[in-house]
Amino acid sequence: VTRREAGLRIDAPRLLARLAQLGAVGADAHGGRTRLALSAEDQAARDLVASWLREAGADVRVDAIGNLYGVLDGAQAGPPIMTGSHIDTVRRAGAYDGCYGVVAGIEVLDALRRRGRPRRAVAVAAFTNEEGVRFAPDLLGSRVVAGHIPLEEALALEADDGARVGDELRRIGYAGTLAPTAFLPAAFVELHIEQGPVLDAEGVAVGVVEAVQGHAWWRIAIEGTANHAGTTPMTLRRDAGAAAMGLAGRLVERARADGVPQVATVGTLSLEPNAINVVPGRAVFTVDLRDPRDAMLERAEALLQEGLRDVERQGFRVAAERISHHAAVTFDPALCALIESGARELQLSSRRMNSGASHDAQMLAARCPTAMIFVPSLRGISHNPKEHTEPAALAQGAELLAHTLLRLVDGGSHGIAGL
Amino acid sequence: VTRREAGLRIDAPRLLARLAQLGAVGADAHGGRTRLALSAEDQAARDLVASWLREAGADVRVDAIGNLYGVLDGAQAGPPIMTGSHIDTVRRAGAYDGCYGVVAGIEVLDALRRRGRPRRAVAVAAFTNEEGVRFAPDLLGSRVVAGHIPLEEALALEADDGARVGDELRRIGYAGTLAPTAFLPAAFVELHIEQGPVLDAEGVAVGVVEAVQGHAWWRIAIEGTANHAGTTPMTLRRDAGAAAMGLAGRLVERARADGVPQVATVGTLSLEPNAINVVPGRAVFTVDLRDPRDAMLERAEALLQEGLRDVERQGFRVAAERISHHAAVTFDPALCALIESGARELQLSSRRMNSGASHDAQMLAARCPTAMIFVPSLRGISHNPKEHTEPAALAQGAELLAHTLLRLVDGGSHGIAGL
Repeated sequence: VTRREAGLRIDAPRLLARLAQLGAVGADAHGGRTRLALSAEDQAARDLVASWLREAGADVRVDAIGNLYGVLDGAQAGPPIMTGSHIDTVRRAGAYDGCYGVVAGIEVLDALRRRGRPRRAVAVAAFTNEEGVRFAPDLLGSRVVAGHIPLEEALALEADDGARVGDELRRIGYAGTLAPTAFLPAAFVELHIEQGPVLDAEGVAVGVVEAVQGHAWWRIAIEGTANHAGTTPMTLRRDAGAAAMGLAGRLVERARADGVPQVATVGTLSLEPNAINVVPGRAVFTVDLRDPRDAMLERAEALLQEGLRDVERQGFRVAAERISHHAAVTFDPALCALIESGARELQLSSRRMNSGASHDAQMLAARCPTAMIFVPSLRGISHNPKEHTEPAALAQGAELLAHTLLRLVDGGSHGIAGL
Repeated sequence: VTRREAGLRIDAPRLLARLAQLGAVGADAHGGRTRLALSAEDQAARDLVASWLREAGADVRVDAIGNLYGVLDGAQAGPPIMTGSHIDTVRRAGAYDGCYGVVAGIEVLDALRRRGRPRRAVAVAAFTNEEGVRFAPDLLGSRVVAGHIPLEEALALEADDGARVGDELRRIGYAGTLAPTAFLPAAFVELHIEQGPVLDAEGVAVGVVEAVQGHAWWRIAIEGTANHAGTTPMTLRRDAGAAAMGLAGRLVERARADGVPQVATVGTLSLEPNAINVVPGRAVFTVDLRDPRDAMLERAEALLQEGLRDVERQGFRVAAERISHHAAVTFDPALCALIESGARELQLSSRRMNSGASHDAQMLAARCPTAMIFVPSLRGISHNPKEHTEPAALAQGAELLAHTLLRLVDGGSHGIAGL
């Protein structure tokens, strides 16, 4: 079969035009856009997406946490095969993060409808407040779907400006009545830009995402003694800065030596009193550890603890706090295999990989067979107006999503448990 | 001989009372005092010191850079034996830094006068703007005496508030007509608190200061690439923070391993963008290197350069600037030996040591045989209202200064070249 015959015809020009149109909602003069969850801009974007879903022949529904669905009934009863992502953004965002998965999903749904009624129902979802910029926690809509947080608690969440999720949903007209579990899918596939540099650096067309890294965020304060940098011999110092920098350097070095896929980042560090000629009396820094293997993440955290105990034994006071933690999420192996064979059939180069960022798919994974498809991000840039993916790469990813959903709606199990 | 018979009787209660009285000029409600150079507070302190010098029988003179001298003529013609220090302070200073050397010098001059006319003239100096807080550079008065900076240039220096040294000297009434070299001494001995923890930690009464450390201050910027901390594999990062912290940690570690007397301090470090989940794209930090041995200081700087070249070879952009540098100053060995033997005669425990801080004596050392005497600083605290030296230790230091000056004014050379 040729590449075109293996999949579904996707209207690539329309996909690109709609990405540009959606990207114009909340746009600023500097190439970015800001479309925080449940804002007026989010409302305008939802209205646009809902209109495209209707145009594609989908039944548009909204659940009680504001998740927006377009549903195409199948010949068989039962839960839908779902794709989707989110359309809220960070501040000064690029045009592709989240939006790509939703807009491509609409193209796939439209292509499936034009092909004739599928065996299984198909749904495209745009989940509420994925970014978590305005309301914490992030992944809010999919989190409620997964039962990770009760609906009432989610509706009561407050933004910094005092606005509540429930009130804001009503204000923008997206407080639905549907139970958030109404469309719990039979399988979920999320298409997304990588937001990292791997595919771009390796020149690979698509990533088959096997797992989302777990992460542990630590905030550490080391207290020593501030002293005159000229008059205090090294032997009489308790240099909190040197202790912190030494430990931070070793943590990053060890992750580098351990190699892919573990990552370690010391993104913030501050010294007190922060004067050129005073030995630092206090150092505060953060550690961001990520690994798709829970055991390896635990080991990295244990090594951090050990390093901190060493610092304590050298006479420093140490206060360490784990401020955030997510266990790793493993996606469905059979679904990954289905995506991978699809890439082969479409003659797209692919590689297995992990997601370094969080995605709605990691919430869905607790409820149904789930996987993700990544397309390259130019130089790994994301959460930035410079976020870019080549048009051809965007079209290829949508074709692979279409190919995958075509297989999933055909009524077979494809080795996927529960399907 | 007993301890008292070996030296001169010092009026210790008056020494302590005058230190308290001088310490009250510019005092705040929190135990500190602020007496920046050529301020109204400095003027009041100068007036007080001048009155004490006159009371001690000295001829009070002021040179063109505002250095204040009290001179007691000797039986022989020729340059004076000089002691002294400074009475300007940093902000929220302690009561002893500088003032101790001036007030003790007045007590010694008074004791010498009461004993009968000395062979050699004696002078007590209070040098202008030692601290360098209001006007840079520091050590200004002694710097002009040493010819390190021309008088005209010094008078033209501007403070942050726009005030000029020359104008301010006139305003407070201390613009003298005497050439700054008028009292170039035959020998100079400065008595000072250590401002470091060594004597206090070792329970030693006095330090015989053989040298002032040289220092080199560097400001270093390392530029890498800011990246997402979750999606960027270690192999594709240019983590400027890790590069800076690794280098800083190694520098401090090496100085610790090399041992006394070298010291290395990374007192400031800032990361950009300084976010927990972003790989630092830029790190700026300072390095303060000090060693009393110029060759070892140069070696430390060479190793820093080598470390920076390593960082460059790893693909970072590095900008390094030496923002300050002083060569080490070695004091007169025979004068040090005279002080040391004086300590022995007075039954005071002593040790040879280096000065980690800058002092007027290091400027005088270019012009005449010079040395310093240190007394302990409690826990090494200085430039702080908590700066403290025990009253008995203050009296002992003054006794050793008196003993030393008594020997120097007797007309002998004591093995000191040029005396």
